[in-house]
Amino acid sequence: MNKLSLILCAALFTTQAQAADWKALPDSPPTPADNPTTYAKVQLGKMLFMDPRFSSTGTVSCNSCHNIMEGGDDSRRVSMGVHGKTGGRNAPTVWNAAFHSVQFWDGRAPLLEDQAKGPVANPIEMGMKDVETAMARVKKIPGYQPMFEKAFGKHSMSVENAAKAVAAFERTLITPNSPYDKYVKGQHSAMNKQQVRGMRKFDSVGCTACHSGPAFNGGNKTLGEGFYVMFPTFDNKYISKYKLDADKGREEATGKAADRSMFRVPTLRNITDTAPYFHNGSVNDLSEAVRIMAKSQLNSSLPEKDVQDIVAFLGALTGEYPKITMPRLPATSGISVVVE
Amino acid sequence: MNKLSLILCAALFTTQAQAADWKALPDSPPTPADNPTTYAKVQLGKMLFMDPRFSSTGTVSCNSCHNIMEGGDDSRRVSMGVHGKTGGRNAPTVWNAAFHSVQFWDGRAPLLEDQAKGPVANPIEMGMKDVETAMARVKKIPGYQPMFEKAFGKHSMSVENAAKAVAAFERTLITPNSPYDKYVKGQHSAMNKQQVRGMRKFDSVGCTACHSGPAFNGGNKTLGEGFYVMFPTFDNKYISKYKLDADKGREEATGKAADRSMFRVPTLRNITDTAPYFHNGSVNDLSEAVRIMAKSQLNSSLPEKDVQDIVAFLGALTGEYPKITMPRLPATSGISVVVE
Repeated sequence: MNKLSLILCAALFTTQAQAADWKALPDSPPTPADNPTTYAKVQLGKMLFMDPRFSSTGTVSCNSCHNIMEGGDDSRRVSMGVHGKTGGRNAPTVWNAAFHSVQFWDGRAPLLEDQAKGPVANPIEMGMKDVETAMARVKKIPGYQPMFEKAFGKHSMSVENAAKAVAAFERTLITPNSPYDKYVKGQHSAMNKQQVRGMRKFDSVGCTACHSGPAFNGGNKTLGEGFYVMFPTFDNKYISKYKLDADKGREEATGKAADRSMFRVPTLRNITDTAPYFHNGSVNDLSEAVRIMAKSQLNSSLPEKDVQDIVAFLGALTGEYPKITMPRLPATSGISVVVE
Repeated sequence: MNKLSLILCAALFTTQAQAADWKALPDSPPTPADNPTTYAKVQLGKMLFMDPRFSSTGTVSCNSCHNIMEGGDDSRRVSMGVHGKTGGRNAPTVWNAAFHSVQFWDGRAPLLEDQAKGPVANPIEMGMKDVETAMARVKKIPGYQPMFEKAFGKHSMSVENAAKAVAAFERTLITPNSPYDKYVKGQHSAMNKQQVRGMRKFDSVGCTACHSGPAFNGGNKTLGEGFYVMFPTFDNKYISKYKLDADKGREEATGKAADRSMFRVPTLRNITDTAPYFHNGSVNDLSEAVRIMAKSQLNSSLPEKDVQDIVAFLGALTGEYPKITMPRLPATSGISVVVE
């Protein structure tokens, strides 16, 4: 444990002394000024998000790893991209990603618009040579042109606008009205006694030091400004068991030693739907994840009753998923853009 | 060309002498008596169809290769299953598959109910050890139990019922009201002049000998009784170019030499949306596919104008795809069934 993280921990425990400021999920997420959400963008973005034809094999779409019919991820430890290749990190949920002020586990993309471009050209994800090559496929599909025109005007088929459309769609992927939201809005029957106990324990042991704010990810930050915490902070038996310190974290993105093991604090919303857990997906049990977090971040060995109460509370963070109509992905008449 | 196929060809040309009996797509497909389509089955079947968690990697669902947001297939020459493995045949569209009297290119499954079980345990498709292992995963997901109960009654979580539900869903995947359907119902403006010319040519050159009936797949057959034709029938230059005779066809399924190169006649509905073409997906251009069919099956070298007219007519076979709401795939609280 280095000096920086000691200071950090001290700061966390200071924050913890105050009772959490519980907040319901806002109706809409923060949105950059240059990409206001419109119906036309959302429709286009949904199509691009679901379309696997922009991967080298034609088999991987955004939705493959961030499945919006599930918890916004893929139930896997680490995702599987083209040709069965796997990466080193667990797919973060796309649900409520719009409430994150930076994207990816290491925060290397400031906005959803930036994030959307990453996986396309990643050789172990969608595997295209570059985003322009992917965009060339989009341009070959006649039905996309009028969608871009509606969303962005004439001659607007560009990587930037495609990413804006996907981000606009992702800003609609929010899950309000969880039992927790109803509870903090005054409907006290929305959570059961165990969940209320868990909520108090979640606060009193210090989880809210990091998992604060309406998305339980550190609260309001300016878009692009990340909230990073060292994980693991305290030495413990779980680190070697689950290889928790094998990933350099944000150091991978910045190259700075000070960013070693620093990770963006992830949202806890819908966490019961997003197993397995942690940046490497090494833990397939939410109870175990809670034990590890208490030990690694708070140097606390929680009694099992508290663990189960906190797990019950986390279950109250699962919100209402909106109904989504499947897009019809525009056809290319009598030819496939995937076959080359 | 063997004796059998000569007899077959003679039969085909006899049929061709009469003008085709043009028929619109029926409102509903044939349905086996022991699996009437119900709302509860369709809802469950849609979930199972879209759920990738029943593949060994958790990445491949029925929809991966039979994408209902597209032409009911995957835009690939041959499909890609778990770990990037590929098979030898092109994924047939699931749209209007219910109008086929047998399933798979070689007709080895009599009903949709039988077909649904095949890919799950195929090592290069969904890659599960067997269907029972896949069913064990279904059983681990609490939200599926009430869906099975609604559809089939208490204690009904079985492979057979899962397959029945998927088949019931697939029987809703039909695309009526194509320009062709409207035309044959009397709305003559629904097809343009080129399409009408193509329709007549399609009949007069003999395509309707095999591609007859409302789904252009040989017309009414009893469910389970296939309509097979030898492909290719006539020797020609395309055979080696596109390796059209490398696949043993139905002989693979029956082991009988007489079934060599025999294939189920596929539907032509929505064919503009299902490139690339043929059992091996070797041809990525509908015009070329028409040229090859004329030469290989009718021993005819069509003038290019006729090819283009027929392609225009085939474009009139693209119907209305129904709007489908994405299912919410039931979660497993705090644990992933994919991680083992």
